[in-house]
Amino acid sequence: MRSLSVLGATGSIGASTLDLVRRQPEAWRVVALTANGNATALAELAREFKAQVAVVADEAQLPALREALAGSGIEATGGEAALVEAASRPADIVMAAIVGCAGLAPTMAAIEQGRTVALANKEALVSAGEVMTAAVARHGTTLLPVDSEHNAIFQCLSGNSHKDVRWITLTASGGPFRDWDAEQLRHATPAQAIKHPNWSMGAKISVDSATMMNKGLEFIEAYHLFPVGLDKLRIIVHPQSIIHSMVEYRDGSTLAQLGPSDMRVPIASCLAWPARMDTPLSDQLDLATIGQLTFRAPDEERFPATRLAREAARAGGGIPAVLNAANEVAVAAFLDGRIGFTRIAAMVEDVLGRYAPPPPVTLEEVHAVDARARIEAKSLMEIA
Amino acid sequence: MRSLSVLGATGSIGASTLDLVRRQPEAWRVVALTANGNATALAELAREFKAQVAVVADEAQLPALREALAGSGIEATGGEAALVEAASRPADIVMAAIVGCAGLAPTMAAIEQGRTVALANKEALVSAGEVMTAAVARHGTTLLPVDSEHNAIFQCLSGNSHKDVRWITLTASGGPFRDWDAEQLRHATPAQAIKHPNWSMGAKISVDSATMMNKGLEFIEAYHLFPVGLDKLRIIVHPQSIIHSMVEYRDGSTLAQLGPSDMRVPIASCLAWPARMDTPLSDQLDLATIGQLTFRAPDEERFPATRLAREAARAGGGIPAVLNAANEVAVAAFLDGRIGFTRIAAMVEDVLGRYAPPPPVTLEEVHAVDARARIEAKSLMEIA
Repeated sequence: MRSLSVLGATGSIGASTLDLVRRQPEAWRVVALTANGNATALAELAREFKAQVAVVADEAQLPALREALAGSGIEATGGEAALVEAASRPADIVMAAIVGCAGLAPTMAAIEQGRTVALANKEALVSAGEVMTAAVARHGTTLLPVDSEHNAIFQCLSGNSHKDVRWITLTASGGPFRDWDAEQLRHATPAQAIKHPNWSMGAKISVDSATMMNKGLEFIEAYHLFPVGLDKLRIIVHPQSIIHSMVEYRDGSTLAQLGPSDMRVPIASCLAWPARMDTPLSDQLDLATIGQLTFRAPDEERFPATRLAREAARAGGGIPAVLNAANEVAVAAFLDGRIGFTRIAAMVEDVLGRYAPPPPVTLEEVHAVDARARIEAKSLMEIA
Repeated sequence: MRSLSVLGATGSIGASTLDLVRRQPEAWRVVALTANGNATALAELAREFKAQVAVVADEAQLPALREALAGSGIEATGGEAALVEAASRPADIVMAAIVGCAGLAPTMAAIEQGRTVALANKEALVSAGEVMTAAVARHGTTLLPVDSEHNAIFQCLSGNSHKDVRWITLTASGGPFRDWDAEQLRHATPAQAIKHPNWSMGAKISVDSATMMNKGLEFIEAYHLFPVGLDKLRIIVHPQSIIHSMVEYRDGSTLAQLGPSDMRVPIASCLAWPARMDTPLSDQLDLATIGQLTFRAPDEERFPATRLAREAARAGGGIPAVLNAANEVAVAAFLDGRIGFTRIAAMVEDVLGRYAPPPPVTLEEVHAVDARARIEAKSLMEIA
């Protein structure tokens, strides 16, 4: 029996994780479950999985959570500090699945616990970068990537040495606009951007997929997770998203991981690692029916986000945090109809040109960089 | 420094092996090099690699070999027994690359030595089947598959448990006739059959590729190398031969190995295993340029060889040896213009219907089954 905490239990990754845990009740003991504000859903999960503690990040929801858990014997806590405290409770594996920078402090707390962290919070690694990887090294933590691309790379690297890697190739669907020309892109609407061809996702990440900033953030994430050097990382557009990523070795062998577009596959890989567990997939991989897999080089003229991300990774320090924060502000502005689609990457580039902070060393400094980058981005919008 | 013997040093696999060894002279000490009859070429290699012993299988060539090695200090021997003796000399790794049933006894001798055998002789494993796998188990030998498909599977299985495998999928180019209809197949000529689309190979294996018996033999080989059960082995047609094979796990992850059509890739993987070594490939994998990979289900109406092989694997014992021997006779008859293309598989099926030997237990019994199956096949031709 292994113990597990899920940070972000009511989100999509949290739900998929608990769906797998639900099928192996004898194998898991749940320590902490956390949510942002949905006390009712969280209480229901906490009761089902007999969690030790349930935490709402939004402290205003704590009374509702307490009421929903009354008589269950499950601890109910709320607020930022409670979230960090819950994340730091000993657990064999912590699923870090809080979206965005809100997940940074609890994810770091889980890392400092020194066991295994399944990382589904890409913004945390992008923004905190070296601060987070230094903590991982210091505490001897095992970091298992949940993102389908990074989980694929992790599997393809298994048993191999980083020094034997010639290329790590991230695949990108290319998003819903991959065949659009520059003029069409200028008039792309939020409704068009959030229709992702292969994955069902939230609005923010769907827009990131359309701009390819999602792949840019994944590029930075890969840079931190797999330290083979920036020049050995590359991106290929693969519209079917069947090959999730690849690793080429110096002997000419390329290993690839393929699978259906179901996050339960990489989650199961993390939960069972280094073994394997069953997943209840409706949709098995059938290449004869799929018929073809296609590939093309990325076009950084139309989609400059991956170039910006590569440059930010090369610059290091706080620059990726600036990129991420500026992108979040720009995407929100695009979704609100305040800026056009192609302005998203342009605005990120403008902010990167205006604000180059010194490398943050602590989590607090990362947060300060993030906050300042948001202010820069917002002030840019007022100018424009 | 590791010691190495190459059985079949003057053949295509032997040459590729020595091409890699040549680039790392400080890493290798060569024990035995063997050839069928080309004494001049063998002597040249033996001198270059400072082999301990050079062996010609054809004893008539021994005087020529002795003369060519005079004064070199390299032992020269000849004949079947000498071949087996050389194969049994201690070496960290033996590359078993003698083509056909002639390789059976020396390959077994190398296996009985109990270290690592890189197996490029598919007929040996097909014919000797359980006799060979029993010897591998008894002597604790590590068997590394050289065939690109099996090497791919071996790499995709690395670090994983056979019990977690849902599918092992062998890819098949489909051969030069994959798009031909039944009527066209009936009139296929030897010249057409030996033009393989992706690999440059000998005539026998090219015809086997055209009938898909090559994939059938590989299916039997995979059955012995990766004991996951016959029902978890399948074949998919993949005309580009870029994905060399795949393993799907019970969590929905599929691992695939991809690479250029260059045997130095799987050979390097065997030589350096479990590490990696450089290969001097002119042709690196560039999926963006390749553009697409396609897949389709095999058609066992037009290409019954894979069905025959699966049935032979299921029957076990000496049946795969009968299949292999009958196929060798039939392919030779086709190449000589004595039978038509579609008659190859039909003749194999006829022989399988006429001769069902009890399971061979010794190598001698395997040879006897092989010999008797050839006689049956030849007598069938005389009837027809």
